[in-house]
Amino acid sequence: MNVLDFLITPAEACQRSGPNDKIVFSSRVRLARNLKGVPFPGHAKKADRLKSLETLVPAVSGLPQMGTEPFAEAMDKLTALDKQILVERHLISREHAAKGVGSGFVLNKDETVCVMVNEEDHLRMQALRPGLQLKQAWMAIDGVDSSLQEKVEFAFSDQYGFLTACPTNLGTGIRVSAMLHLPGLVLAEQINQIIQAVNKLGLAVRGLYGEGTEALGNIFQVSNQMTLGETEGEIVERINKVLLQIIEHEENARLAQLEKKPKVLFNHIGRAYGGLSHSHIITSKETMNLLSLLRLGVDLGMFGSTPKSLVDELFLLSQPGHLQIGHPEKLDAEVRDALRAELLRQRMKVVPAPDHTGVVTKAA
Amino acid sequence: MNVLDFLITPAEACQRSGPNDKIVFSSRVRLARNLKGVPFPGHAKKADRLKSLETLVPAVSGLPQMGTEPFAEAMDKLTALDKQILVERHLISREHAAKGVGSGFVLNKDETVCVMVNEEDHLRMQALRPGLQLKQAWMAIDGVDSSLQEKVEFAFSDQYGFLTACPTNLGTGIRVSAMLHLPGLVLAEQINQIIQAVNKLGLAVRGLYGEGTEALGNIFQVSNQMTLGETEGEIVERINKVLLQIIEHEENARLAQLEKKPKVLFNHIGRAYGGLSHSHIITSKETMNLLSLLRLGVDLGMFGSTPKSLVDELFLLSQPGHLQIGHPEKLDAEVRDALRAELLRQRMKVVPAPDHTGVVTKAA
Repeated sequence: MNVLDFLITPAEACQRSGPNDKIVFSSRVRLARNLKGVPFPGHAKKADRLKSLETLVPAVSGLPQMGTEPFAEAMDKLTALDKQILVERHLISREHAAKGVGSGFVLNKDETVCVMVNEEDHLRMQALRPGLQLKQAWMAIDGVDSSLQEKVEFAFSDQYGFLTACPTNLGTGIRVSAMLHLPGLVLAEQINQIIQAVNKLGLAVRGLYGEGTEALGNIFQVSNQMTLGETEGEIVERINKVLLQIIEHEENARLAQLEKKPKVLFNHIGRAYGGLSHSHIITSKETMNLLSLLRLGVDLGMFGSTPKSLVDELFLLSQPGHLQIGHPEKLDAEVRDALRAELLRQRMKVVPAPDHTGVVTKAA
Repeated sequence: MNVLDFLITPAEACQRSGPNDKIVFSSRVRLARNLKGVPFPGHAKKADRLKSLETLVPAVSGLPQMGTEPFAEAMDKLTALDKQILVERHLISREHAAKGVGSGFVLNKDETVCVMVNEEDHLRMQALRPGLQLKQAWMAIDGVDSSLQEKVEFAFSDQYGFLTACPTNLGTGIRVSAMLHLPGLVLAEQINQIIQAVNKLGLAVRGLYGEGTEALGNIFQVSNQMTLGETEGEIVERINKVLLQIIEHEENARLAQLEKKPKVLFNHIGRAYGGLSHSHIITSKETMNLLSLLRLGVDLGMFGSTPKSLVDELFLLSQPGHLQIGHPEKLDAEVRDALRAELLRQRMKVVPAPDHTGVVTKAA
């Protein structure tokens, strides 16, 4: 089966809801694990990588948590487009998409558990949930981990805990993260302050596609950096508390903008609507930033009954890989910018023109 | 009577039409004249200026060409807002608006003839026509000039012709000009080439408010520089020919853009529509540039039956002075930018969303 046929549609994916999903797109917990006595993927020979792949893919696929008929595939069997789509859906890392022979991944049918085999570690197992559901994600991936330990033996040190390719993952091997939409803090120019404060608490703040990427669309990933010295439960609990504080700051920033500079806010949102509805050439980067403002407008009630799932769907569909779907020839950036604009013009037709009058009343 | 009560409304003013008015907003011919034996305004004492004002205002007002009940007023009797409105309507120069005691102006009821008294010269008499009607404007102002010569004696030299304060106006004292809308040449990046070619023909190309001003809204003024050595008729004829060539170049530039880069063109026009329809803060400069693109879209048939008079009216109404009307307190730029956006949002409601499909068919 083709990856694209397996994946749920962007519309379905975006209709999922969870607590605090106005601000928190999704929660994710991933565990890094390695097989005992087998070289880490970066140091392993091709034969070793193929061997661990052959062991792990069936082992993971057979777990009860992966449900019936998970999708399991070797990375070298995927097309460049398949890989790009998986990255754009945030199911695999960019690094994993660059892998070929000897790497693979397993994804369950509802896309709540995705396991990368032979990325930086033998196993990068992740559980995903919409909104702020770190504990639920942690419990899910903990279950996967426990079940898998009945089948294979992990590299473990009594002194350090789980051994990993990179020392930053040593110990629990856990990375807890949430993807946040923070346009209020960006508009209020408070985002750098928040990032610094969050960094001081030992958490990392990154852009949309992880380490070293830009915060396009005012979307930020917050995650733990330390994996030693605390239990997984403590890490999850600590991040959860910080996220609740960030959510509060974002809500306050929105309210403050609405009270102090409503015209500036409406101007940004109105122009974003205008650009999305009427452009004929638009880059991915601009689209993300305008969609962020549209989503903020939806949150504020400026677009009638437009659901935020529509905006989230456009976030996905306007990415280069998703635009490529259905086109046999490789599209260049110029063609994509025109296709993206056409898609947006079409889809924006159902979004009514912005109406700020109700918002003003609420703020007054 | 107040200037504002006398002036025709922007809507009326913009509904006037003339030949080639897709590209030529208006034609203007002005004559510079001075009284014999009276110092030029720049060198005259206050008493002399008052005297010439007292002579000239009734003389001009009583001309048959000024019709019944022209508006005649001393500049020191006008408020700053009155003057600003007259400048924004292109009835008086910025320089004249800065004058006080000893200067004045006379305007006929249909705003086709406007005479400035004691600007740089004793008389700056101008006739205005919509579209490309240089000859008609010339004939009109020539009539005013002839009638006036029956009442007063002008400073005239057999060797040089009419004497003027600045030698650039010496001889005929004529300045023939047209205001052109050239978005096609600007988008095609051919405008500088055209300006250079026109300059070589001895014509000046200036921005919206004359010498030294920016070409906001892709609006350019073309006028003669030489006033000696040719008859008025020859000057009018020569400029008319050049203007017809510029019009052709503009039309070709539009067609070429439409054939070679339709998406770029539709993108500019679509985004202009979006910005005008949905902004909450917008500067005068940005407004002019977006209205220029909207007007181009109207010309191309992208906005249904929207008349270009609506766009032209918005060009006027969105200027700082026009926005100030009806507000007793002096508005600052920030407030104006919000008021302008509100005006545009309201007025743009009757303009349908851009539809490029018909345009593509025509170009194909």
